[in-house]
Amino acid sequence: MDIATLIGMIVGFGLMIFGMVGGKDFGAVQSFLDMPSALITFGGALGCILSMNPLNDFIGGLKTITLVFKVPKANETETIKTIIELSNLARREGLLALEESTNTLEDDFMKKGIMLIVDGTDPELVRSILEAEIINVDARHQSNIGFWKNLAAMGPAWGMIGTLIGLINMLKDLSDPDSIGPNMAVALVTTLYGSVLANWLCTPVANKLGVLNDNEIKLKEVMIEGILSIQAGENPRVIEEKLKSFLSPTERKGFGEEGGA
Amino acid sequence: MDIATLIGMIVGFGLMIFGMVGGKDFGAVQSFLDMPSALITFGGALGCILSMNPLNDFIGGLKTITLVFKVPKANETETIKTIIELSNLARREGLLALEESTNTLEDDFMKKGIMLIVDGTDPELVRSILEAEIINVDARHQSNIGFWKNLAAMGPAWGMIGTLIGLINMLKDLSDPDSIGPNMAVALVTTLYGSVLANWLCTPVANKLGVLNDNEIKLKEVMIEGILSIQAGENPRVIEEKLKSFLSPTERKGFGEEGGA
Amino acid sequence: MDIATLIGMIVGFGLMIFGMVGGKDFGAVQSFLDMPSALITFGGALGCILSMNPLNDFIGGLKTITLVFKVPKANETETIKTIIELSNLARREGLLALEESTNTLEDDFMKKGIMLIVDGTDPELVRSILEAEIINVDARHQSNIGFWKNLAAMGPAWGMIGTLIGLINMLKDLSDPDSIGPNMAVALVTTLYGSVLANWLCTPVANKLGVLNDNEIKLKEVMIEGILSIQAGENPRVIEEKLKSFLSPTERKGFGEEGGA
Amino acid sequence: MDIATLIGMIVGFGLMIFGMVGGKDFGAVQSFLDMPSALITFGGALGCILSMNPLNDFIGGLKTITLVFKVPKANETETIKTIIELSNLARREGLLALEESTNTLEDDFMKKGIMLIVDGTDPELVRSILEAEIINVDARHQSNIGFWKNLAAMGPAWGMIGTLIGLINMLKDLSDPDSIGPNMAVALVTTLYGSVLANWLCTPVANKLGVLNDNEIKLKEVMIEGILSIQAGENPRVIEEKLKSFLSPTERKGFGEEGGA
Amino acid sequence: MDIATLIGMIVGFGLMIFGMVGGKDFGAVQSFLDMPSALITFGGALGCILSMNPLNDFIGGLKTITLVFKVPKANETETIKTIIELSNLARREGLLALEESTNTLEDDFMKKGIMLIVDGTDPELVRSILEAEIINVDARHQSNIGFWKNLAAMGPAWGMIGTLIGLINMLKDLSDPDSIGPNMAVALVTTLYGSVLANWLCTPVANKLGVLNDNEIKLKEVMIEGILSIQAGENPRVIEEKLKSFLSPTERKGFGEEGGA
Repeated sequence: MDIATLIGMIVGFGLMIFGMVGGKDFGAVQSFLDMPSALITFGGALGCILSMNPLNDFIGGLKTITLVFKVPKANETETIKTIIELSNLARREGLLALEESTNTLEDDFMKKGIMLIVDGTDPELVRSILEAEIINVDARHQSNIGFWKNLAAMGPAWGMIGTLIGLINMLKDLSDPDSIGPNMAVALVTTLYGSVLANWLCTPVANKLGVLNDNEIKLKEVMIEGILSIQAGENPRVIEEKLKSFLSPTERKGFGEEGGA
Repeated sequence: MDIATLIGMIVGFGLMIFGMVGGKDFGAVQSFLDMPSALITFGGALGCILSMNPLNDFIGGLKTITLVFKVPKANETETIKTIIELSNLARREGLLALEESTNTLEDDFMKKGIMLIVDGTDPELVRSILEAEIINVDARHQSNIGFWKNLAAMGPAWGMIGTLIGLINMLKDLSDPDSIGPNMAVALVTTLYGSVLANWLCTPVANKLGVLNDNEIKLKEVMIEGILSIQAGENPRVIEEKLKSFLSPTERKGFGEEGGA
Repeated sequence: MDIATLIGMIVGFGLMIFGMVGGKDFGAVQSFLDMPSALITFGGALGCILSMNPLNDFIGGLKTITLVFKVPKANETETIKTIIELSNLARREGLLALEESTNTLEDDFMKKGIMLIVDGTDPELVRSILEAEIINVDARHQSNIGFWKNLAAMGPAWGMIGTLIGLINMLKDLSDPDSIGPNMAVALVTTLYGSVLANWLCTPVANKLGVLNDNEIKLKEVMIEGILSIQAGENPRVIEEKLKSFLSPTERKGFGEEGGA
Repeated sequence: MDIATLIGMIVGFGLMIFGMVGGKDFGAVQSFLDMPSALITFGGALGCILSMNPLNDFIGGLKTITLVFKVPKANETETIKTIIELSNLARREGLLALEESTNTLEDDFMKKGIMLIVDGTDPELVRSILEAEIINVDARHQSNIGFWKNLAAMGPAWGMIGTLIGLINMLKDLSDPDSIGPNMAVALVTTLYGSVLANWLCTPVANKLGVLNDNEIKLKEVMIEGILSIQAGENPRVIEEKLKSFLSPTERKGFGEEGGA
Repeated sequence: MDIATLIGMIVGFGLMIFGMVGGKDFGAVQSFLDMPSALITFGGALGCILSMNPLNDFIGGLKTITLVFKVPKANETETIKTIIELSNLARREGLLALEESTNTLEDDFMKKGIMLIVDGTDPELVRSILEAEIINVDARHQSNIGFWKNLAAMGPAWGMIGTLIGLINMLKDLSDPDSIGPNMAVALVTTLYGSVLANWLCTPVANKLGVLNDNEIKLKEVMIEGILSIQAGENPRVIEEKLKSFLSPTERKGFGEEGGA
């Protein structure tokens, strides 16, 4: 569970409620609850996104919200250590000895790469198969990120459509001066909803998915470099030096003298 | 028929009407119908797009709206299976045996590629002819997508021009205070029209065309890889492994043991 | 004469006038005519563009407006047919035989390319000379397109400057309530002018120049491929197949059996 | 002196004053002069840019405003003629003969390139040294252009901060209705200042610097091509043909028969 | 300590206070202090950024603000001089002689590169290890820059959310006309806070971090070129010529005749 994302969202939501209530009691929040406004803003924006995507992509996009609360299992330092172990194994007992070690590997991408070199696949082909996979993983993720970015753009757009409808209705009949204020307040609620949808929910989700994607792609690139180095029979110390370039100075400290061969 | 796009558009439109009517009867929608406003917003925006494009491109762009409701025939999983079948055939009976199988191929791009390798064309030339075709298909699609993106930009622009004209007319004569509200309401209607044109129609259409284009290009790239692998006489199992990199984990499950050679 | 651009502009302008007049007589247009507003918006925006560019580029940029009404002479289908004829000629009678055929070629780029291969220039050099020319043609066009894009950005900016000046003048003296409306109307006229300059004139012109440039560059790329294929002595049928990749499915139908060798 | 930039700026400024004065006498300009507004808008924006840059870059950025009024000395047609002369000299008397001709060359980049080939430097190294120089010249120019672009963005931002401060001060005390108009006028002056800073000064300067940079880079690219062609001992006629691709059709006319060898 | 950044920020802040106070006493600043407004704008924006990032990245991003006040130790001119000294040493006494000189090198990247060539690592591998490090340093910096850019975008967004909440609360109850002005003033305070957060703090910090990153990357590229030239045993004079291309004309003057071998 990634606490930061959850806390960030709760803080934002809480402060909004706090701003609405002001010094008054919680009943003040009711001024900000309006079902028709919610329907036109959220419904309109979601309808719009639905019409932009094949149904499967729409459902898939919605589901990705759960990902932002998960901490990814894989980890660069661990992955590099695994690669160094495998390279030591391969130098001692040959590439074929890697086959059984794949049973203990958790990452499917890593497993696939090791299987390819165990099968004696040509290095160029190994690289092109694994890179095609990275490109396609990235494309699928970008499509999910796009889902949330589009929703972040459509929220304020439909909020404005709702506000325009409210304003036009209000302006058509100004005979009762006392109703002007409250009517305008209701008209503004859709703008608020659209703004909250974009800035509290969608933009953070899109950004978080982007960070997770960047990390996953970088991790897979580390794996490709490692797998090809194992296949080339490179010295585990050189492999370690090469892969440590991917780490930040802090992460590198995780490698003591015991890290290498 | 792609239900998602249709449903999304109907939902958006219905919620807009619902917002306009509010608790009142359907007559309230009349406040939002104004022929001069429609003419200046939709007519002005379309005139603008017309002046941006040669006539053929304008008509072609308009027509592409029908595409967003169609489900594309081709499918990656099917295509990969077809390629593997063809590669088995080619290994058993030679490249020339592929000639008659082209009669059963539905996709023109695939057919063209197979004909090129049956004719014994140089692999580099096969790739460059097929890639030139992808580049040009993409350019034509981008031009259609651009049509809807430009219209999405021009809608709000002409909506604002209409609102400015309405405001200036209203401000010139403020002698009758009772007419200010309704006049301003009418002035805002063009802004609403422009916003709806952009956010309900054009942006979703442009995005959907973009998704369809991405899928078609990716499919054609799978075909190129497959066709060149067949020509190179690669092992059908290796071809399968290579092309499966283009699939998502879910799609890969469609490949059982029977999928390969 | 490209009718579409002209019609589009007339439609947009006509609908604007129609919106200004409303149900009233044509005198209503006078509310929208204000010389100082026109001077500050159009003059300011043009002054700004003038200060951005060397004088020659400014004049050259202004002149390109005439291009958007012209239909380009060259045509892909015709060009491909010409290339195939030349390749047949070259195969029958040798590259030198192309020399006299250049007299009938209308396109300077094509002529230059043919002269280069007649002179026996190295293929790599032919490609690099012709590609340098494409890059420089594109750069000159982009600079003209940039002229109109900058004007499209500066129009609304100076419109807003005019409106701010008008508002400040109005707010300084609110003693006569009857003049507030008309004064504000005049202040808004510059915003309207800026918006019309951008959306009715400059953006369409910039886009149309972009479309014309794309087509010209694509045509020149077809020529380069063709010229190098002729020099390499490729089979006219293969050349046709290669160049047809640049055509849309509709355009390809223009090639019957008589098209090839 | 580049008259266009100066005239453009004077025209823009003059029209602004004209708009402020309207039919009234010049005293009306006083409504638009407000020292605190000027301090917060210009001071705030400049402070912001100062905090973005090391001090040297800030001063260097400010100084580049003088460049926009200068006409660059170098000229493509002249440069190409010089290169052709040098190539003729090199073919007649050898590369070493170029050494003394460098004394008459005005351009340091050209001089450096010629010295490198006189020294017998490896062509690959000559290209990489000269290209590194282009990349670094471009990076320095982009940083100056960025200075003006950032100021163009910060002007309106601080204008809005000033307007918000003015509005809040005004709204806090609405007891004197007569002061509302003038107070709001003063609040808007900062928005006007920010807009003028961006659209009258910074954006044109940034664009002009961009045009100057593009021309300089292109000129240096012509020089690299020319210098390497001289080193390779290419035929002066071929060099001329190659370099003329960089010229526009109009500029090419400057080359008569006397231009070549 | 980088004075420019500090002075720039103080100037901006001081002018803001000056604008708030106007001619009045300092008590006027109180109109601009509102705890709930600060909580919703700053808290909401920070909560949003927190939910976008893993916790470590959030804390790391916040900490980078200290970097903008530091003057980077490394310096291009010094670095080039060091490289030339090392190359002279290597030519006189061999690559192994560089080992002890690494003790005096302050820069870790330089030290790592020298160690790699002392170890006799293959030049291609040296380049790829060092370039991987540059890419990863740049990615980490971009992520920090992104932190401040996101905050710069979220500040105004939450400022607007706060203003909408304030406006809706105000409009719901317009019974006391005297409270409208002050209530609206409070509503606008969040917009002001968001604008100040973005334009006074976050955008300058993001830009400054960008400048620092550009300089560091460029310095590391100089080091790579230098290290590989040393390994290749190139002439120190050629190395100097090559690396001086990275310097501006002013910086080059720092190299007298004593600079070279």
